[in-house]
Formats: sequence, C-alpha cells, structure tokens
Amino acid sequence: MIQKVNVSLDKNSYEIIIFNNFLNNILELLKPHLKQKKIAIITDKNVGNLYLTSFVEVLTRGNVEVVSLCISPGEASKDWATLKNVVDWILENKLERDDLIIAFGGGVIGDLVGFASSIVRRGIEYVQVPTSLLAQVDSSVGGKTGINSKFGKNLIGSFFHPKAVLIDVDFLNTLNERQFLSGFGEVIKYGLLGSYPFFEWLEKNSKDIITGDTEKRIKVVSSSCKIKAEIVSRDEKERGDRALLNLGHTFGHSLEAGTEYSDQLLHGEGVSIGCCLAFDLSYKLGLCSQEEPSRVRSFMKSLGMMTDIAQIQGKVPDTETLINLMKQDKKVKNGQLHFIIPRRIGESFVSDNVNIGDVLSVLEDSR
Amino acid sequence: MIQKVNVSLDKNSYEIIIFNNFLNNILELLKPHLKQKKIAIITDKNVGNLYLTSFVEVLTRGNVEVVSLCISPGEASKDWATLKNVVDWILENKLERDDLIIAFGGGVIGDLVGFASSIVRRGIEYVQVPTSLLAQVDSSVGGKTGINSKFGKNLIGSFFHPKAVLIDVDFLNTLNERQFLSGFGEVIKYGLLGSYPFFEWLEKNSKDIITGDTEKRIKVVSSSCKIKAEIVSRDEKERGDRALLNLGHTFGHSLEAGTEYSDQLLHGEGVSIGCCLAFDLSYKLGLCSQEEPSRVRSFMKSLGMMTDIAQIQGKVPDTETLINLMKQDKKVKNGQLHFIIPRRIGESFVSDNVNIGDVLSVLEDSR
Repeated sequence: MIQKVNVSLDKNSYEIIIFNNFLNNILELLKPHLKQKKIAIITDKNVGNLYLTSFVEVLTRGNVEVVSLCISPGEASKDWATLKNVVDWILENKLERDDLIIAFGGGVIGDLVGFASSIVRRGIEYVQVPTSLLAQVDSSVGGKTGINSKFGKNLIGSFFHPKAVLIDVDFLNTLNERQFLSGFGEVIKYGLLGSYPFFEWLEKNSKDIITGDTEKRIKVVSSSCKIKAEIVSRDEKERGDRALLNLGHTFGHSLEAGTEYSDQLLHGEGVSIGCCLAFDLSYKLGLCSQEEPSRVRSFMKSLGMMTDIAQIQGKVPDTETLINLMKQDKKVKNGQLHFIIPRRIGESFVSDNVNIGDVLSVLEDSR
Repeated sequence: MIQKVNVSLDKNSYEIIIFNNFLNNILELLKPHLKQKKIAIITDKNVGNLYLTSFVEVLTRGNVEVVSLCISPGEASKDWATLKNVVDWILENKLERDDLIIAFGGGVIGDLVGFASSIVRRGIEYVQVPTSLLAQVDSSVGGKTGINSKFGKNLIGSFFHPKAVLIDVDFLNTLNERQFLSGFGEVIKYGLLGSYPFFEWLEKNSKDIITGDTEKRIKVVSSSCKIKAEIVSRDEKERGDRALLNLGHTFGHSLEAGTEYSDQLLHGEGVSIGCCLAFDLSYKLGLCSQEEPSRVRSFMKSLGMMTDIAQIQGKVPDTETLINLMKQDKKVKNGQLHFIIPRRIGESFVSDNVNIGDVLSVLEDSR
C-alpha cells in the first residue's frame, strides 16, 4: 500500500509518499530526484546505528555514490556549532547544487539538515526521509527549516522545500512509547484544528495505530500530511492560514522554552498539553461548550498522553515567566500575542486580541 | 536627478533607485517599505563614523524607532562568528518579520546583513543602501547574500531579495581611489559582457566619472544596474544566463582565494584582471581578434586599473594551486570547470569545455 499527497506550491511543488518496506522501495523512490549520481545522507547516531549500513548498501548497489554523516541525537544539535559542522562537511565532500542531500531522521535532523541544505551554495536539493512520527506528520512537511537560538526555538532558519518527502511507517516500530505518543499530539492536533471526521476516526482507531497496524498507520500519516499540505499550499510563507497549524503551540513552545528544550518535555507533549489549554481558553472566552475540552482531554488521557502542566516532571517556571516566553515568538506582530482558538473540535481561528489575564488563569488552572 | 531600475521577479520584484543628496531624500524613499515603525540599521565602523549619526537623526525626526549596530569593516566579517553576532543582535532587539533592516555599507555589509535578514525568523524584510561603487553596481542587486567558508568565497548563503535598493552616488565621494577603481572593474564588466555601446560610452566618459561628475555617476550606476537587473530577471536562481555576470570571476575568485581575501587584492581588482584573462583565453581559443584583449587592457590601464597577475603586490600561489581553487566554486557542475568567454566586447557565453592547459597558459602569461 502506497499513499501519495501532493504539496502544491507552483515551482516548489513536491510529493509526499507514504509507504513501508524501506529497503525494497527507497532506490526507486529516490531515482526521479537524482540529477547526478551522488547522495549525502545525514542522520543521527540513533537512526544511523539501526538503519544506515543497509541504506547505504542498497544505494551503492544501485550505482549511487554515497557519503554519510552521523551527528549527536537530540534538540541540542539544532545549534550554530552543529550547523557549521554539517555545512563544512557538505562542502568538504564537494556536494554540488545538483547532487542530493537526504535528511534521514526525526525532526531535529529534518530541521537542521534542511537548513544546512538551503544555505550551502545558496541551496542544494534535498529529500526528507523522516523516521519519527512527529517528523512524518509535521516537521518534514512544509519547508520550514531551522535551528534554535538562546532567544527561542526555531528563531533562525529558512523556508526551503524538499524535492520529496519519503515516509516509511515501518520506522515507527523502533520508537519507544513516549516518542510515539509525543508525535501523536501533532496527529490529534490536525483533527482538532481542521477535521472533525478525522478526530472521530482517531477516537475509534488510535489503539490499533499505537499497537502497530501498518495500513492504519499509513492512513493516519497520509491524512495528517494531507491536512497540513492543504494549509501550506494556501499560505506558504505563514502570512495567514498557516498559523492554524500552531494550535497548541503558543502554550507548548513556552513550556518547552521554560524546561529548556530538555527531555523533561518533548515537543509533541508540549503540543498535546497546549491543545488542551487552547480548548480551556476557548471555553473561558465563551466560544465553545464545556464538553469540548473534556472530550479532548479524556481521549488523550485514554491513550496515556500528557494534557496538563501538572504532569510535567521536575521544575516548571512560574506563570509570568511562561507568558514572557510566549512574547518571544517568530509570529509575534507589533508586540501582540496571538493564539489559535478552537471554536469546536474540527474548527479553529487566529485571534490576536486575547486577554492576558485569561491566558494566565488557564495556565494556573493547569498546574 | 533620480533614476529608477525595476528588478522584475514576480512576487519578489523591487526597485533600485539611484539619487543623490541622501539626508533630504532617504526618509521619503524608505516610507513605502515601513509596515511597522521600527528600523534596524546595520553598518560597519568606517561608514558608521561618517554617516550614522545624521542618518539616525533624520529617521528619528520622521517618527521611526531606530536601533543600530556597527561591525568591523572588511571581508573578514563575512564569517560565521559575525553572522551569529548580527543574528543575535537582531533577535535581542526584538525585530519582527514586518520591521525593516537596512544594510548600510559596502558589499560585505550587503552580503552579511542580507544573509542575516534571510535567516532570522525565516526572513525579515530588508533594504540595501550600498555605499561603495562595487556594492552599488553589483552586490546589492540580485538577492545573492552570503558569507565565506574556509572552502571558498560566498559558499554559504541564500537568495533573498531586498524590498528596495536605495543608491546615493554622493557616498562615492568618500571612497579612496583604489576602492573606486576596484568597483569600476565591475562597471566595465557590464560593458564587456553585454553592451558594446555602454563600453564605448565608458571609454569616453570614465575620466569625468572618476573625478566626480554627479550626473554621469548616476548614469553609470543606473546603466550597470539595468544590465544586471535584466539578466537577474531572466534567471533568478542562476541556472542559466545569470552565469554571464561572472565574466572574469572564475579567474578573479581564485586569485582572491589565493591571496586569502586580504587587502592584497580587492574583489573588483580580481574582476578587472579576470576580465583581461577571459579575453586572453578567448583569443587563445581563436574566438576573438587580438585587438579585443588589447583594447580592454589599454582602457583599464589608462584609468590606473589592474590588468595582470604581475601587478599584485606580494606572494601569489603557483598556477596549479590557482586552478585547484577554481574547482571549488559554487557553480561547478559534475566537477567540470566553466568559464564565461567573450566573443567580442559586448557579447559573451558560458562554456564548460575549456581545456585546462589553455587556462594554465593564460595564467602563466599574466604573471
């Protein structure tokens, strides 16, 4: 079973292909993007230890010249020093504009390698091969690349679209439960922000997805990518609708910043908590009924996901600090915070006149 | 007298405005690009010492909030460390996507600040206000930004177009003769690669331009920008015709790299030597008459410009090293060197099957 999702962006259009059985399929899937016969695979040590040798073997047998680099896993690699190392390595290996770079790993690899590809020789073509659920349904799609700054997450980067996103759901088998559920935060987000039927389908099928049903995994990934691709096609550079994809993210990012992007809170965990808080805020503003936040929370809880600040292990900064962290966001305009507010499950909108007092009280209630 | 040149690039189109009398005009010229009332000026200490105070004053009187940063002058600032400092400074000053950054200075400032603008928050709008002749006729136009790598010049960067390029030719009054003549290398290049009438006009008027005729300076800058803008509009991402702008640059870049981008050889000096060598190469290949390289060389010499490697003060690497430096160029494809070869003054083409032996002998003859 193979699913295809088109990301329609004029000259930058590309396909997301969702499949399984990696080694049997990857060479054929890469072929249309090989203008020259040289590929650089950049991955992290976790993914590299599991899959790199056989991946390189299959390409080499296909007469492709392959060089590869493994970097340290974890969010800490999205920094200046690692970016410089990756860029230097690409130049040292004499990759040319028409060669191909493969970002092979989770969200950190996708963001970092996509960014490096965009700035070496002012842009070398690259393909995303995301291995975590989070990367498969979110960060590999849409062309956002970047690293973190001491002033905030993803504040340095570019819009640079891959030539293709090739997603094998079999990679999800080696994720641990916490990583999988973190990615599932982004999956549920798509239902919450844009599709009630998808949310309902998730309520019925999530147990099967989590325990490993391949067909349903292909469906859940392709449905998520489709919702994201449609929004990105409407608004490539995030001047309008694309902001909807940030449902739960204003809350989530400030919690991630407050816990210093450490293992204390994974990105998708911040998002799942953030989605619950966005529904709380909506209810507080009188925009949705009390049943909506309850239904979201109880569904997430039934899967073992995080829904409140109180569940974060260890120290979390006080509420005022969290609000200050929200203010240092890429999307802030004229110093004005904005939030994605759900009207109901399946529909949301961008608001830039939320009362800070209401945000404060939602955060307090969640501790 | 004001001249306007349009750079036509779909959504990225912008205007180059060539004028004089800076302080009386700059506020009005910036106004169309002020979505929010905050501007960050980034300049170097040389330009800053001369012009920053009065520039800031005129904007402040116009109710614009201004922050400013002065960095060290010179090519050495096009490095990772300075890029990181500039990016951090922009974030620290909380510049938002709709605020405006001004790259105020020569080519180094334009390339560095343009690149920083392109990667902070995935792109903040910026305006080029180039002050050197080299920046006015070349580097500020076309959206190429970047820094140098130990593997070569401008190997790290992006395509990121300014909202406008505002060129006051009065700034040329404070350039010393060597800087001015270096920029003039790029000016003559435009005649050589694409317009015989412009070259002829230059032969007649260059003495006046050099001694300070404002009207002729506005004409020479706008004519140069117009030739560049037309080529850039045809080929934004340098997949075809844009390569013509590199006449003299394959030679020039290797000489610059060989002298470590130091004051030993300015960029435009490398270009003027490179243009002469490109004509020598063309003659050697039997593509132009002997008169063409002679006419180019004698015109340049009459202005006091550099035309041969022998004129470079200090050590220059041996010829084989220079050829190896050529091979590490952004535009190399499949390991194949390519050259811009003039057919005659005013017309040139891209060739990717030049015999290395011919290049070697041209370099040897020039020492």
